[in-house]
Amino acid sequence: MADKITSIDIRILKLLSRNARLTYKELAEILGTTRQRISRRMDRLERNGVIKKYTVIPDYDALGYIHVILGITVKPTVNIDEIIHILVEDENVKVVQRALGTHNLVIHVVGPKDMKELEKMIAEVTRKIPEIDKLDITFITDTVKFEVL
Amino acid sequence: MADKITSIDIRILKLLSRNARLTYKELAEILGTTRQRISRRMDRLERNGVIKKYTVIPDYDALGYIHVILGITVKPTVNIDEIIHILVEDENVKVVQRALGTHNLVIHVVGPKDMKELEKMIAEVTRKIPEIDKLDITFITDTVKFEVL
Repeated sequence: MADKITSIDIRILKLLSRNARLTYKELAEILGTTRQRISRRMDRLERNGVIKKYTVIPDYDALGYIHVILGITVKPTVNIDEIIHILVEDENVKVVQRALGTHNLVIHVVGPKDMKELEKMIAEVTRKIPEIDKLDITFITDTVKFEVL
Repeated sequence: MADKITSIDIRILKLLSRNARLTYKELAEILGTTRQRISRRMDRLERNGVIKKYTVIPDYDALGYIHVILGITVKPTVNIDEIIHILVEDENVKVVQRALGTHNLVIHVVGPKDMKELEKMIAEVTRKIPEIDKLDITFITDTVKFEVL
């Protein structure tokens, strides 16, 4: 991260976090600047990885899916990088996060509502992780608020 | 959810989940259909709440923040709706999710890197939740993968 984050960057990020589909023109009007400047700042934020992705937050229930969070604690001797490398390739695993604290790995699985099938899917994923000390399974029933910044 | 989700909806959602800034024109070209149809389907998905939000996934570390997940289990007698109502209003609480399983409430806090300040912020949030049975605190150190669908 060589480039400094400026206050205009933060303002752009806040606006995009509420609506990632705002056009350069709309952002420029709200922030009282030019399209060119917005475009330049956003390119930079994307290139630097400050913006990892523009995405949608869907209602999984409406789509017929269940959103499951697995909070995983592995034994201290385990190489987390190796596990992450394997999990990232698994298309059933949507989110992979390194962590510190109660869990040292947080993964999200989006699966079928059928509990027997879901159980099978979760088992297939967790089988890839050696030496799990603790596995906390949480089914998200409703995302009431989702903000980023 | 009166309207049925069609296969074109799913294809639109998958594309937007990878890049929420795709224009109607780009989506139409990829899916071999018209701008009008894309616009109509997206309006519908937004109106129905199937698309809850278009947002960005930022690199919190680069912005000087820490992303903390609190997995909370409250006593069975507690009214979760009341707690959610209070937490949603707290600007330090970015994500609020109802849940079933290990935790019955998952909340995300984005706070300062200074651990003393962060501790204070977390304490202020958790103080609003009566009768916590179990609180799991997980600091996200890296979001390696973030997909939605």
